[in-house]
Amino acid sequence: MSAQLIEEELFEATDHLVQLQTMVEEADDKQTADFINDLTAAEIARLLSAFPPKERVALWALITPENRGHVLVASSDNIREQLLSQMGAKAVLRICRTLSSSDMVWILSVVNDTIAEAVTLALDNEQREQVQSVLAYDEDQVGRYMNLDTVTIRADVRLEVIQRYLRISGGLKHGNHDLMVVDIDGVLVGTLNVIDLLNGEQSAQVSEYMNEPQSIFDTASVDELMVYSRAAHLNFVPVVDGEGVLLGQINAEDINELSIERAEATMMNMAGIGENSELFSGIRSGVQNRSTWLGINLITAFLATWVIGQFEEVLAQVVALAILMPVVASMGGIAGSQTLAITVRGLAMGQIVGSNRSWLLNKELWIGLINGLVWALVVALLAHLWFENSAISTVIGAAIWINMAIASIAGVIIPMVLHRMGQDPALSGAVILTTVSDVVGFMSFLGLATVFILQ
Amino acid sequence: MSAQLIEEELFEATDHLVQLQTMVEEADDKQTADFINDLTAAEIARLLSAFPPKERVALWALITPENRGHVLVASSDNIREQLLSQMGAKAVLRICRTLSSSDMVWILSVVNDTIAEAVTLALDNEQREQVQSVLAYDEDQVGRYMNLDTVTIRADVRLEVIQRYLRISGGLKHGNHDLMVVDIDGVLVGTLNVIDLLNGEQSAQVSEYMNEPQSIFDTASVDELMVYSRAAHLNFVPVVDGEGVLLGQINAEDINELSIERAEATMMNMAGIGENSELFSGIRSGVQNRSTWLGINLITAFLATWVIGQFEEVLAQVVALAILMPVVASMGGIAGSQTLAITVRGLAMGQIVGSNRSWLLNKELWIGLINGLVWALVVALLAHLWFENSAISTVIGAAIWINMAIASIAGVIIPMVLHRMGQDPALSGAVILTTVSDVVGFMSFLGLATVFILQ
Repeated sequence: MSAQLIEEELFEATDHLVQLQTMVEEADDKQTADFINDLTAAEIARLLSAFPPKERVALWALITPENRGHVLVASSDNIREQLLSQMGAKAVLRICRTLSSSDMVWILSVVNDTIAEAVTLALDNEQREQVQSVLAYDEDQVGRYMNLDTVTIRADVRLEVIQRYLRISGGLKHGNHDLMVVDIDGVLVGTLNVIDLLNGEQSAQVSEYMNEPQSIFDTASVDELMVYSRAAHLNFVPVVDGEGVLLGQINAEDINELSIERAEATMMNMAGIGENSELFSGIRSGVQNRSTWLGINLITAFLATWVIGQFEEVLAQVVALAILMPVVASMGGIAGSQTLAITVRGLAMGQIVGSNRSWLLNKELWIGLINGLVWALVVALLAHLWFENSAISTVIGAAIWINMAIASIAGVIIPMVLHRMGQDPALSGAVILTTVSDVVGFMSFLGLATVFILQ
Repeated sequence: MSAQLIEEELFEATDHLVQLQTMVEEADDKQTADFINDLTAAEIARLLSAFPPKERVALWALITPENRGHVLVASSDNIREQLLSQMGAKAVLRICRTLSSSDMVWILSVVNDTIAEAVTLALDNEQREQVQSVLAYDEDQVGRYMNLDTVTIRADVRLEVIQRYLRISGGLKHGNHDLMVVDIDGVLVGTLNVIDLLNGEQSAQVSEYMNEPQSIFDTASVDELMVYSRAAHLNFVPVVDGEGVLLGQINAEDINELSIERAEATMMNMAGIGENSELFSGIRSGVQNRSTWLGINLITAFLATWVIGQFEEVLAQVVALAILMPVVASMGGIAGSQTLAITVRGLAMGQIVGSNRSWLLNKELWIGLINGLVWALVVALLAHLWFENSAISTVIGAAIWINMAIASIAGVIIPMVLHRMGQDPALSGAVILTTVSDVVGFMSFLGLATVFILQ
């Protein structure tokens, strides 16, 4: 019974998926619709993402109009696009009417321009202005992600008045735990946390309990927001314009979602696959989103083979070189990607700055030299036991040492340079690094062999 | 001025690091101490992590005793261990006295057993029991991470009474937005969010506003907590024992930190480096934490070379095979790691369950076959233009097709099997996959060449 209970409680979420799979197989639409519409929007979105495209569209048809908007907002870009692609302006408008202006942006940014325009025109003035102001930001600007439903208060009001005001207006929504304190011009002067509102002396003024605002500009990049919020452990960030006027706020939930998405995107990018790739996408989109990287990889692979091709003569004479060749490239590749991974994380955390850069470079060079030497000796010994040829073992040892040292340094320098150029260090970093370790590895191994072994 | 302002506001966090670097260089201890002790514990921890070990220890000496405990709790395991390693039982006890029982666990789990015992003995009975109960859990069990400072209330009390109680007791801390509703036996019956406490009718009872608890067992694994909280979009999770008695709670901040840590650990593991590796570690620990993976990689690399060695004869006859060989392994490697990355993410999100497994496998096989065919033709063409030998181009095309299709399937199956075995699919998945794509690649390419080209 206890094990049963554990299953039930712990995997309730997973269970929902299994339950839904069974219902879909049984094709009982009524029961499926009742089941799915009873869940939260976030959970429906997650369940939809775990079905193949065809089943997903069938399930979508069972979701009630009131739920649809929120489910779309909670879905990933790809799925949102897929589900919206089959709707006309009228259906999109009906969905938008159930959403706040900030949420509507998620819908309107993926439908085609004609529909977006038609829907925007049909909104009331206030909503239209809000939607247009958010859509005016770029996709990597903070303004695009801000929540417009801020609750603003004044610094000289008593806490008990604020409490009464909140109760009447119902202003504070779940997930929003901070009130924004603004002056008469709308300039943000502080924030008040609900815990202080609750625990504080009720006859005291807001100013006694408010915190200094740690805000961000609407035009800042999402990357900056991530480093900033992570560094200062912020769980919400007010968004202000150049004059300090409050425009909106980024809530804890958004920060967390963005952080996890970013960390996963880094992982996906380093593995050579687009960050928006869905597990349960169709075959066609699966083929497409992997092709870019396979194409780029082919170019770098042929660059490496071209290097090898330059040493045809020595390869033809000493077949052991062809056999051992992959070891040199592979050890350099691992040494480099280790350094790359740790540097990419350091950049995301805003740790690499100022005078610690040269310390880091120096440290990685030493690690590369020491590790390189150790593994060079091991490989040389193994090669010697295999081929019993001291020239070959010396050459492979030297090549491994050179390649691991250079790859280690490259693993620090490449992401730093890409970051400074405003590029994603994870995405192009991995491919550049592989190219470096392949080219350096083959060149040093076969080059040294040509000098010392070729007769 | 505006640009200046942007710099100041946006990069305040990064600026702190630069400022601190300057102060350390100027060696003005008084000024440095004043500056650093004015920051939050989380920020001090972050700044410490961005200094090399020697400077870090020097900075640590400037941190006031009141700050030290909280800074250690906010630091990563490695840094906590480094800083604590030079302290005696007395110093550790002084630090523990500034912390709650749940936080103390972070200290006591990294000091040596003698010190941990001495400190535990010196605590008062209640704290000792709490600390011991938490330390009794494994490091991957939820109980180890729970916060014991829950605020418990009864369902039949009026909201206004709760508010008064909170004000007097000061019970609700920042970052904790939910009250636990328990019955007379301590069994969790619901939770009350502060927003509902604020907005609700004050003369109504808690039961009218409380939510059904979505709790987790103390013995559940952290992995289960992650899938569960992510799937249901929970931002706090009450922890209960087998009888449903409330033991503690996991707060939003902990969930987020664990999620980001997990996502980053996946990225690091796939790149072949331990998840606890610090960017600013010393050279020795840098060498150590990379060695394991380099050693494992060496074994798999030699396995691949052994495969190549079996085809010495054909390699000696046709040098073009040695030149083109890396392309086959590399294309298979990318195809496989793309599938691996997307499957690992799906597993972390609890998406892969029940009947969608076979759909997924089928889809990936098709993607591998289609992509494999496309790139096989491209490579065959390029090889033909280079070597003008149709046997070679046919053989490499066939080998690429075989390797990419098998690697794609392996990219789904390997992480699924590892996950079911309770292993981390990211960590060993990448190395197993590389082995598969190397071995299959070399074997199919050189094997086909032996059959069709060897004279």
